[in-house]
Amino acid sequence: MTLRESSRLAKINPFRVMSVSQRARVLEAQGREIIHLEIGEPDFATALPIIAAAHSALEQGHTQYSNASGIMPLKEAIAAHYENRYGVQISTERIFVTPGASGGLNLLANMLIEVGDEILMGDPAYPCNRNLVRLMGGSPCLVPVGPEVNFQPTVPLLKSQLSANTSGVWLASPANPTGATLDRKSLTELSAWASDEQLNLVADEIYQGIQYSDDVPSALEVDSTNFVVNSFSKYFGMTGWRIGWLVVPDDYAEMANVLAQNLYISASSISQYAALAAFLPETMDIFEQRRDEFENRRNFLLPALKDLGFELPTKPDGAFYLYANVSRFSDDCEQFCHRLLEENGIAITPGTDFGLHNARHYVRFAFTTSLENIKIAVDRLSSALA
Amino acid sequence: MTLRESSRLAKINPFRVMSVSQRARVLEAQGREIIHLEIGEPDFATALPIIAAAHSALEQGHTQYSNASGIMPLKEAIAAHYENRYGVQISTERIFVTPGASGGLNLLANMLIEVGDEILMGDPAYPCNRNLVRLMGGSPCLVPVGPEVNFQPTVPLLKSQLSANTSGVWLASPANPTGATLDRKSLTELSAWASDEQLNLVADEIYQGIQYSDDVPSALEVDSTNFVVNSFSKYFGMTGWRIGWLVVPDDYAEMANVLAQNLYISASSISQYAALAAFLPETMDIFEQRRDEFENRRNFLLPALKDLGFELPTKPDGAFYLYANVSRFSDDCEQFCHRLLEENGIAITPGTDFGLHNARHYVRFAFTTSLENIKIAVDRLSSALA
Repeated sequence: MTLRESSRLAKINPFRVMSVSQRARVLEAQGREIIHLEIGEPDFATALPIIAAAHSALEQGHTQYSNASGIMPLKEAIAAHYENRYGVQISTERIFVTPGASGGLNLLANMLIEVGDEILMGDPAYPCNRNLVRLMGGSPCLVPVGPEVNFQPTVPLLKSQLSANTSGVWLASPANPTGATLDRKSLTELSAWASDEQLNLVADEIYQGIQYSDDVPSALEVDSTNFVVNSFSKYFGMTGWRIGWLVVPDDYAEMANVLAQNLYISASSISQYAALAAFLPETMDIFEQRRDEFENRRNFLLPALKDLGFELPTKPDGAFYLYANVSRFSDDCEQFCHRLLEENGIAITPGTDFGLHNARHYVRFAFTTSLENIKIAVDRLSSALA
Repeated sequence: MTLRESSRLAKINPFRVMSVSQRARVLEAQGREIIHLEIGEPDFATALPIIAAAHSALEQGHTQYSNASGIMPLKEAIAAHYENRYGVQISTERIFVTPGASGGLNLLANMLIEVGDEILMGDPAYPCNRNLVRLMGGSPCLVPVGPEVNFQPTVPLLKSQLSANTSGVWLASPANPTGATLDRKSLTELSAWASDEQLNLVADEIYQGIQYSDDVPSALEVDSTNFVVNSFSKYFGMTGWRIGWLVVPDDYAEMANVLAQNLYISASSISQYAALAAFLPETMDIFEQRRDEFENRRNFLLPALKDLGFELPTKPDGAFYLYANVSRFSDDCEQFCHRLLEENGIAITPGTDFGLHNARHYVRFAFTTSLENIKIAVDRLSSALA
């Protein structure tokens, strides 16, 4: 049989984190006790008010297609969230409830990227984003960002890679795998520059809320013509429900609606009705307690890793990741991760999942397991690296 | 503000059925009683065993991401379904649980379509399919099919449109908007021809089960290297749950897995656990009762429409649609639909949603409302067209 598949797939590789997880499960099946620090999924169960709302949606028979853009009460709740949390007014016409942030990112890629377009994005970054650009026949233009710029692109860095084919800038704050946020001044400068250059600015804000600084602004605060992707997966703890949202500028709302109809029809109705409960004050209290717990974990793990010899010169202000330089121990992060898993029962993700820039010298720790487990991992690391 | 959006959107229009539905709701809000024959969604609530399974999934906390390809018990149930219903053995490695058939079609489009490729498909057909081809930079090559070929492509018709750029054939059986099925002989010929020409064959089988003939074969019965898209939405009555599945040839499984990770991570976990109950014998009994009811509706509506002067020379063997020629009444289906809605309170879909071939002379009736309502609609049509 001859494979006849699209050439756009050539540069899209499986994620290494998946083989780490699979191998970890094999070892567990053999009786080994593995500490999971590889997975980008909160370890907390979905909050009970959301579960209750889902039961109630089932009882009320909310099992039909919704509008492509989502149910109105949820769009209103999201608009109220922007007003309360960020002080910006977003009309519900600009809000699209999506099947996960993935659905939103895919919609934006289809809407904004022309074959041959170059999209500026940081390296390291969440690998799906660059793959979605490639699937559209565009080229991700990876801008190396290291600790010297807090792992976030700056205007001079972006400018140096601008070409006639550049059509957009994709940012993330807080970012995966670094946990780095963009402060208001940096975000404002980046947004103004993108606007001057007539580039679309897409901001991945799926980790917002999981933040350890009071000021992690939304790209919508600095310019209402920016595109924002968000999710109920991380802060709101609804990963398996596959629900997120997009905010698009007014002029793009009609086309986004047509694309939603074609790409996914609608997000899950039950997930949408369940997500309504995410904005209740008692549910938000649960999320804030979980945020506190993530902060405690970060505050323990960050200095512990530094003491062990990992290089972590910046202090991540969001998400649940630490992106650590392992140069002192290895110049091959994949081998390093492999050894830690096989010999010490610690599962972490090699930097090579996230880009090319110095990637072989980095690993990502996800603190998505209990502080108790994290302490065991640190003890094991201490023996392993002594 | 200058819109900077991809040119691939130029040929993608909103679905007219949406404006029909929206206008119908406006009229209903004004107190008018509208009979809905426009909507491609079963009017039956999700079957109770599925609802019960969803409650139980919530109680058991099945709210995390699943594997990108879906939970193993569901893939096993789907494999068993192929064995029981079609007598074919499909390994679970070839099965991908998707966020609706939309998610599966989008994955296949990304996997199989190169920029510049031409994809052969019938006209009329489900409009999303051709739009997904366009989004990938491909061209849908619409093959006009009328009642003389039972609204399905034939090998000579496809052959006449073959070019050096043709890379695939997308079929549907039963098809939307015509309800036409492909019999075993036709499907075998089409599949053998596609294979000879080294074209990928994608079969949309989302209406299978809703059929009024014993022999509506799956494309997997005639060649295991065909690609099949299916859905829990129609026969299984789970529209708003957004869950479907794909079967791909062995050699494509690895790439499909990578694409699933990038495009949507996984289908909704709750929907997946709920869908397990769809294959229980007592649930299948419910589906068969509903199929009977759809058949009763078709058996009433088809002759009634003919009596009124609609041309329906073929007898559709599947789905819940009748695609009727309105030449006797109008040469502008959109105007015809508009008038029936405004003056007679009947919502139907203009043929122009489904293609170009004689489309202005056709309308689609969806018998997704009770026989009682359908009878009222026929009475109203009778007065309107007298």
